[in-house]
Amino acid sequence: MKFTVNKDDFLNGIRIVSGVATIKSVQPVLANILIEAESKNVIKLTTTDLDLTISTEVDAQIEEEGSITLPSKKLNDIFTRLNETLVTFSLNEDTNLVEVKTKNTNFELIGISSSEFPKILENVNLENGIEIDFKQFTRAIKQAGFAAASYETTGPLSGVVCDIKEEILEIASTDGNRLARVREKIDNIEKKSSKLIIPARTLQEVLKISGFVEDEKIKIYTEKSKIVIKSSKTLIISKIIEGHYPDYNKLIPETSPKTAKVRRNELISALELISVMVNEKTCIIKFELTENKLEIKADTQDGGKGKQDLDIEYSDEDMVIAFNYKYVLDGLKNMDDENVLIGLNTKASPALFKPDSENDYISLVMPVQIR
Amino acid sequence: MKFTVNKDDFLNGIRIVSGVATIKSVQPVLANILIEAESKNVIKLTTTDLDLTISTEVDAQIEEEGSITLPSKKLNDIFTRLNETLVTFSLNEDTNLVEVKTKNTNFELIGISSSEFPKILENVNLENGIEIDFKQFTRAIKQAGFAAASYETTGPLSGVVCDIKEEILEIASTDGNRLARVREKIDNIEKKSSKLIIPARTLQEVLKISGFVEDEKIKIYTEKSKIVIKSSKTLIISKIIEGHYPDYNKLIPETSPKTAKVRRNELISALELISVMVNEKTCIIKFELTENKLEIKADTQDGGKGKQDLDIEYSDEDMVIAFNYKYVLDGLKNMDDENVLIGLNTKASPALFKPDSENDYISLVMPVQIR
Repeated sequence: MKFTVNKDDFLNGIRIVSGVATIKSVQPVLANILIEAESKNVIKLTTTDLDLTISTEVDAQIEEEGSITLPSKKLNDIFTRLNETLVTFSLNEDTNLVEVKTKNTNFELIGISSSEFPKILENVNLENGIEIDFKQFTRAIKQAGFAAASYETTGPLSGVVCDIKEEILEIASTDGNRLARVREKIDNIEKKSSKLIIPARTLQEVLKISGFVEDEKIKIYTEKSKIVIKSSKTLIISKIIEGHYPDYNKLIPETSPKTAKVRRNELISALELISVMVNEKTCIIKFELTENKLEIKADTQDGGKGKQDLDIEYSDEDMVIAFNYKYVLDGLKNMDDENVLIGLNTKASPALFKPDSENDYISLVMPVQIR
Repeated sequence: MKFTVNKDDFLNGIRIVSGVATIKSVQPVLANILIEAESKNVIKLTTTDLDLTISTEVDAQIEEEGSITLPSKKLNDIFTRLNETLVTFSLNEDTNLVEVKTKNTNFELIGISSSEFPKILENVNLENGIEIDFKQFTRAIKQAGFAAASYETTGPLSGVVCDIKEEILEIASTDGNRLARVREKIDNIEKKSSKLIIPARTLQEVLKISGFVEDEKIKIYTEKSKIVIKSSKTLIISKIIEGHYPDYNKLIPETSPKTAKVRRNELISALELISVMVNEKTCIIKFELTENKLEIKADTQDGGKGKQDLDIEYSDEDMVIAFNYKYVLDGLKNMDDENVLIGLNTKASPALFKPDSENDYISLVMPVQIR
């Protein structure tokens, strides 16, 4: 194997795949990037943790075909620091040593044979994909993917629902205490449908690499037990979580008997300020609503208490309701609007936070019982 | 006690003193800031860990005199998040509760009586100070204070030498493996002298708060066992380290048989790049000097090796010398010049790194023996 790449192109490729390589694995080859130089002008970089696999192509001048795996961390460290433009890789097939050479520098890296790397890409079926705008997709998973349960790693609640039906992409997640859902209108020309539970970790990786992928459109392919997300040069293959996801849409009240309209940034600042005085275990902040006024309150037994008054629009019955303030903040920070509407019912019913102008995003937070 | 302060002024005060307050202490009052409202238009904030004490004044409108201590972390968290301008503190002397109030917010903080706070400021003698330009002082301690031994916390090598003689301020530190020294010309009109070992931690704190202190000049006062650094509003009182400091000036060779001239940024980049391939325990990088060429090399048994060639000015005998690259980098990063001169003798003698244009800063690094 011998090829020459542009340093920045190769670094971009490393950035796309390196998040999946894991040093802690029992299989050392999973800490490595599989480098394959098997076609004419392009090499392929691949990493996998067996559940999630990412592969991307980098333009290259190939002199000799071949493949090897090299440590992801070392490649990343070298390429982020390298100041030169052209880099040549040459593999000694007998020793698995790779010489990485530029005009003024020379590295010798110890590789692991590519035959030890799991063969995941061989069984990927790319038929009947659904095309989606990539920005729209990443925006939706950012807005509605954060509420997946962090306390479990394999069950349905550890995943994010991705439901494509006609012209609507719906992304939702819930951990039982809060729920986020967004609906985006998409061009689904072929009118295909698909409903999946995708591991939250897969979508976090998609968000992380979205800045390094240039395409405007991606295609989503689903098979029985996996999902494939494909841009022109990059392929993300993830297992799907099987099992029954709660019917979250039934939990979202269609109307709320009481509604408050609050300036979103003011509410964020107040929650952040008053959170200084919460009990760090429970994170409870009280909302006291009276006519056109919201009082945000917290207290701890050993530290004291704090409150802030906000002028809001509210003309329903006075009420007091308490939340884990972090759940409220997560939703508020995923909105862009100036105002947020808070839909309330009783102090024991879920509260609905949604942007004033947009009806397709909601963040639902279960209140906390207080004395 | 009751007073009103401007939020930004008070926050600046907190930033100056809060680094010394320590939550981990056995004495809870040491996690607090002592707030004293005892003169007309100014309150005083003080923190101490018993070795180091910082006190600063903040303009205030005082309605009732008094004093209390309040948790440094809570005050810092509240004031960094607070969006309002005027803040009123009122103490309930019976309960030690302090109400902290702005137009829209209200906090109740639980204080500890000021009588429990150590009385350190009472015995400070401010006579016969030496006046120094503050920027010059912080620049010197940044350049030459980093080499103090981190492996000990009380002995002389854990400190930094501050030697004022006639018109020269000399700052130096060494941990036995490397040494940094700088000499700055100062206006010492009264021709006072002073030679002290100041704890490195004290000087780190001086560097940290230097951005929040506006004065151009500071005064340094020394007593038998302590040093006082004073600006118009801020007082830093630190213990001095007693004991014998090695005569480091004797260790610095006056001339070097071999000299290389290297572009400083190129050397920094090369060390950072090749450090990817060092053994992380020893951090050894080899310098191979031949005519007008420097080869920077590293290798590890299980990871491979790396090297970079640099064009330099060198016409002395070929030589190979090895260093802990972190020690070399620390010195190089404290210089501003385009070129660095490396003074060498044998592969077992200390190497002298100094900026090309400036003769009063040197960083000396002991080489590492290699096979």
